Amino acid sequence: MKDVQSEKDIRNIPLKHVGIKKLRWPLTLLDKEHGEQNTVAEINMAVDLPHDLRGTHMSRFVECMQELGNSLSLDALETVLDGLKSHLQAQKAYLELRFPYFITKIAPVSELKSLMDLDCVLVAEKDTEFSLKMCVEVPIQTLCPCSKEISEYGAHNQRAIAKIEIVMSEMVWIEEIANIADLGASAPVYGLLKRPDEKFVTEQAYNNPRFVEDAVREIALLLEKDSRIKWYRVIVESIESIHNHSAYACVEKDWE
Amino acid sequence: MKDVQSEKDIRNIPLKHVGIKKLRWPLTLLDKEHGEQNTVAEINMAVDLPHDLRGTHMSRFVECMQELGNSLSLDALETVLDGLKSHLQAQKAYLELRFPYFITKIAPVSELKSLMDLDCVLVAEKDTEFSLKMCVEVPIQTLCPCSKEISEYGAHNQRAIAKIEIVMSEMVWIEEIANIADLGASAPVYGLLKRPDEKFVTEQAYNNPRFVEDAVREIALLLEKDSRIKWYRVIVESIESIHNHSAYACVEKDWE
Amino acid sequence: MKDVQSEKDIRNIPLKHVGIKKLRWPLTLLDKEHGEQNTVAEINMAVDLPHDLRGTHMSRFVECMQELGNSLSLDALETVLDGLKSHLQAQKAYLELRFPYFITKIAPVSELKSLMDLDCVLVAEKDTEFSLKMCVEVPIQTLCPCSKEISEYGAHNQRAIAKIEIVMSEMVWIEEIANIADLGASAPVYGLLKRPDEKFVTEQAYNNPRFVEDAVREIALLLEKDSRIKWYRVIVESIESIHNHSAYACVEKDWE
Amino acid sequence: MKDVQSEKDIRNIPLKHVGIKKLRWPLTLLDKEHGEQNTVAEINMAVDLPHDLRGTHMSRFVECMQELGNSLSLDALETVLDGLKSHLQAQKAYLELRFPYFITKIAPVSELKSLMDLDCVLVAEKDTEFSLKMCVEVPIQTLCPCSKEISEYGAHNQRAIAKIEIVMSEMVWIEEIANIADLGASAPVYGLLKRPDEKFVTEQAYNNPRFVEDAVREIALLLEKDSRIKWYRVIVESIESIHNHSAYACVEKDWE
Repeated sequence: MKDVQSEKDIRNIPLKHVGIKKLRWPLTLLDKEHGEQNTVAEINMAVDLPHDLRGTHMSRFVECMQELGNSLSLDALETVLDGLKSHLQAQKAYLELRFPYFITKIAPVSELKSLMDLDCVLVAEKDTEFSLKMCVEVPIQTLCPCSKEISEYGAHNQRAIAKIEIVMSEMVWIEEIANIADLGASAPVYGLLKRPDEKFVTEQAYNNPRFVEDAVREIALLLEKDSRIKWYRVIVESIESIHNHSAYACVEKDWE
Repeated sequence: MKDVQSEKDIRNIPLKHVGIKKLRWPLTLLDKEHGEQNTVAEINMAVDLPHDLRGTHMSRFVECMQELGNSLSLDALETVLDGLKSHLQAQKAYLELRFPYFITKIAPVSELKSLMDLDCVLVAEKDTEFSLKMCVEVPIQTLCPCSKEISEYGAHNQRAIAKIEIVMSEMVWIEEIANIADLGASAPVYGLLKRPDEKFVTEQAYNNPRFVEDAVREIALLLEKDSRIKWYRVIVESIESIHNHSAYACVEKDWE
Repeated sequence: MKDVQSEKDIRNIPLKHVGIKKLRWPLTLLDKEHGEQNTVAEINMAVDLPHDLRGTHMSRFVECMQELGNSLSLDALETVLDGLKSHLQAQKAYLELRFPYFITKIAPVSELKSLMDLDCVLVAEKDTEFSLKMCVEVPIQTLCPCSKEISEYGAHNQRAIAKIEIVMSEMVWIEEIANIADLGASAPVYGLLKRPDEKFVTEQAYNNPRFVEDAVREIALLLEKDSRIKWYRVIVESIESIHNHSAYACVEKDWE
Repeated sequence: MKDVQSEKDIRNIPLKHVGIKKLRWPLTLLDKEHGEQNTVAEINMAVDLPHDLRGTHMSRFVECMQELGNSLSLDALETVLDGLKSHLQAQKAYLELRFPYFITKIAPVSELKSLMDLDCVLVAEKDTEFSLKMCVEVPIQTLCPCSKEISEYGAHNQRAIAKIEIVMSEMVWIEEIANIADLGASAPVYGLLKRPDEKFVTEQAYNNPRFVEDAVREIALLLEKDSRIKWYRVIVESIESIHNHSAYACVEKDWE
């Protein structure tokens, strides 16, 4: 059967990426607390294509994921990239996984445990070197310092999302990133709170007002201190309770 | 050219709906304050199909919208439905439009004007009778009565969405529905607030704590009093600031 | 600590639903082929609220899910509903779970296995009786009979979604619904196809042209024959390859 | 009233962006064919924040949009950015607008006119220099060359999205970008086609098979020839009719 993809291409245009998008895949991930956890990822995979080749072989991307199976460690990410490079005769390989990840939160007074879901993204690339970027979206609470200052009582507050992207030289756990986000917040967010917990977090947030500008700076200070983190970008976006749009701030470390 | 759609069908199954979905269309709507406003709608259109006919003619749905042009009044909705019934030899016609609609809000102290966007849906149907359902999603603020009661200071609050669906016997403006939603809230939401306004709405919300259960009941009381409204369903969903999930309540009037 | 939710309410309005929305939860489901599979669900839970009670206790919804743990059988669904009714002193309980579910597809020539993801919804309710509705969205291919008939060669085809909702008197597997969807299609959709498979499904679709009207009728005929299925609604929506909108058809069984 | 935002900040961290996200706004845009058209945009706006200032004034972002009004030309974009820089004492300003834009397509045989919607993004920035990036997503059809070659009849085809991002030195119309996308496709996509048109585009696509790799290269060749275009990135993503995931290719011009 003719292999149309392998035809010579005379248009002389190398492609940055050819591959597949929006492939859903069940995954078992390493979990700091429980050893492992199961989730469902949406995957984008790609390789580069040289200027003189017409196309890639799309079915091999799925086969590379099948070789992996479902257990995903950092080593496994590099194995998938090596597999893509060799099965597709490529110089570079790209793998992006988006998935919800559950952490356990402990309510501050009752000490009841509950799950909370974080949206995470891993972007792994390999040319000659393997590189990995991790992005974790942590729901937090922000309470407006201006509203507190100018009002006789109360202060508007809301759910916000702290989106923390990092490049690391050594393993950093999603649970650690979630903890850093909480330290930048007016108060953390929980899956389950009883009344004494609700009193606690309400007062904690009121005692700890934070603009989005404050939150990204507090988070950046903590990321700066961590020698495993080579680069970071932090965006905090507040789902403003007094407006129908968001407020946001972004801080980004310079590449060295 | 053969008309495959008009073939006789022997499977003997009448279809409830055949039509098109996700057609985007620029519209000019009536506006209570400014006479008219422009928006972009996503449209679903359908007719019924008798048991002995194989298919409908999909291009005629778009042609019926073209006959309408872009100016949409209530009369025009019925004209589109009549057009569908006649061009497609159908007994029933269905038209659903989803669009953002902008209302003007006035800040409570500075009296500055600003726009706020509401997601709206119109569902028009015609068998022998024309019927119309309208749904308006109004962003509001809810402040938790429990959090206020049990905390020494502060109270968690958040943006919520009041989704109000009505069937009316006489014209009710989107602006009127938005106003009813505000009356059920701890405080309204605005596009633009200066500091004296922010102080006002912060204190207003604190003075006016509302569960989602309270908000739907307050809104239902107002809808009950309006003789133009024959049926309603109200859902208020709070984007909880202390959790990563929503709280919601729903009240629905019985059909008489 | 004061229990504000338990206050008496004098507004005299019973609520249809009070509860939580958009709670994400890891689940282990029964799997026809492999015994079980892991997924991540988005959950809505609610109970009714009598006219004279101010509010419900939102934290108990999460506690009811925690009592379940993560393994979800049909029996477990009813246990959750009974738990909601007893912990929240309610007459009615409602539980809705949305999750991706993976089935194994076998390529028609190479016989290679691959996973394919389906979006599923379970809606369980209990008043005095337990009821369950299941909705499965199956990606399929539709090839246009009109385009094939009038063109000298080729025919436009596209991915479509067959959304099959059923109420059952006995257990029906998601895998069985997916198979019924495939039988209504021009050709099934697969995770992995090699070239001989691609030739097979291309020719299969061309030999088997189906309008969305045909697809819903073929599926309805198969559902009608299955004595376990008491009610169904089928919607097939084609992501038209020649338009930027969809074509769709809907058939719905009358309640007996 | 105290201005908390204007407090001195000692954390010594400059912020890349502070501003608002997801503000919806009605806009009137220039239209190549009709002079102007109305749409609804979602807007992100930001400025930089120096290391020693605690916060920005979020309400001024909305005021800068109000100064603009609703008529948006390229000159107006720069005016908004200058307004942000001056009202917020910033060195840099950022403005991103996402909106649907309608173009008129003419059916190839019947010559009937119909609208088609494109998702567009404008990103304008000003430090000392004004810069503008435009992104247009054009729905097109791709027909698989491999499927055509290996099958005795038929070929799988599907809707695809050509996402074309450009930086321009002179005005390029959205309509021109849409036309370039069509030239890279197996066939264009239309709002309205009668049967002779459907025959035409079915045969056109069959005569003109294109992988996503072919489509991005054809589009890149056309963009290369246009001296107004200083940089481009093209992604074509096919909503594969035989899979439940997409195939995609990306080509990006090097910065000079």
